[in-house]
Amino acid sequence: MATWFSRRKRRIEVPRLRPRTEDVVTTKVDLHEFTPSPLEFLGRAAYVQLTLFENLSLAISSAPTTAAKAAIGAAAEGSIARHRALAAEIEKLGSTVADAMDPYTGPIDEFERVTRGADWFEQITTCYLTTGFLDDFFARLAPGLPSSLAERVGAIFAAPTAEAVLADQLEQAIAANPRLASRLAMWGRRLVGDTMLVCRTALHFTEDQRSDEARVEPVFSELIAAHTRRMDALGLTA
Amino acid sequence: MATWFSRRKRRIEVPRLRPRTEDVVTTKVDLHEFTPSPLEFLGRAAYVQLTLFENLSLAISSAPTTAAKAAIGAAAEGSIARHRALAAEIEKLGSTVADAMDPYTGPIDEFERVTRGADWFEQITTCYLTTGFLDDFFARLAPGLPSSLAERVGAIFAAPTAEAVLADQLEQAIAANPRLASRLAMWGRRLVGDTMLVCRTALHFTEDQRSDEARVEPVFSELIAAHTRRMDALGLTA
Repeated sequence: MATWFSRRKRRIEVPRLRPRTEDVVTTKVDLHEFTPSPLEFLGRAAYVQLTLFENLSLAISSAPTTAAKAAIGAAAEGSIARHRALAAEIEKLGSTVADAMDPYTGPIDEFERVTRGADWFEQITTCYLTTGFLDDFFARLAPGLPSSLAERVGAIFAAPTAEAVLADQLEQAIAANPRLASRLAMWGRRLVGDTMLVCRTALHFTEDQRSDEARVEPVFSELIAAHTRRMDALGLTA
Repeated sequence: MATWFSRRKRRIEVPRLRPRTEDVVTTKVDLHEFTPSPLEFLGRAAYVQLTLFENLSLAISSAPTTAAKAAIGAAAEGSIARHRALAAEIEKLGSTVADAMDPYTGPIDEFERVTRGADWFEQITTCYLTTGFLDDFFARLAPGLPSSLAERVGAIFAAPTAEAVLADQLEQAIAANPRLASRLAMWGRRLVGDTMLVCRTALHFTEDQRSDEARVEPVFSELIAAHTRRMDALGLTA
């Protein structure tokens, strides 16, 4: 959440009925009961990160200014580093990165397809909102891994992200063209369902737990609340 | 050239009339007389590297297998790191990365457009051949920078590249579909002119030198010879 706070400092605050930080300090519920095997966790997480990186790269290619290209270039470096750190953990377990990712590409490719966006503004909105959502999700799933791996994976997801850079780009775009806001708000709402689907397929339910999927609902409520805060930070109504 | 040797080790050698390494040991001519100002050098080089990175990223998105995605993902990490290292040098000179790159985007964007390729195989061929050519060129231009900067930039270009990874991907593709070879050979030949144009626009000629552009010809002959060796390494006739 470090980047969340650091980027908020740079915003112009408008009076609000309730301080915005209040939402942020809630205790995070983790998902350790539903964590899949280490290799499945890493394979899915690495492929998700590679996909998030691809989205960011496409946004470099279609960026409207050199300044945006440079800013997102910096973000892409962090993004590919996260994928590569997960890939290194896969190799430590004796698998190849490709073999570990291969069984899980289907739903993630579908996610990529439906969240691609019609133009640069939607692409960047996708990067900003889905990266935060999916990183949060995998960070909460990580505590169910064997302890030393859980710690290393936790550190990978605790590294600073590109969220502030992407939010800045979007803020500038919306300031320059306020009519973008309603289109991007609608796009942001659409992303929730597709992003949640990627998360749900990553949860491992035992036979006993099958009947009992409601237990993960509080986590999704928190993930959606964080999504809403990300939209709210740009003045987009979730 | 380290990656050149390391990738050759993994190839199955066929008998040749002349050992292939002979070409490699020629003394490199540098271009220090024609080096532009530090900020121009860095702006152009950083934008070229960002473009090479974008090409690599597009090749991840369109890769036919998860194994290819994973391999090129590893390559992309090195590529964006090179751009970012040059960007850091720009910031040390007190400029923003965007301002330094902005005046030089025209010919490089045009290069990107004409070398984009019709499919994944052409994309990868572009990445493999143009990255080697342009890196060689900027490495030879770097000695004309002020000495401590020249040393740091030299180190950036001396870092291992993704050449071996890309050559492997292309070898596999051609082995699986030998008819690709003639199409990719033609594509490889076409790339030379467009790549040389990016190099020529980066050379700084004083009024006195204008009449005397022939002096850079030996360098371009060497760059083209290296290009031919890269094609030859894949069995493509240059």
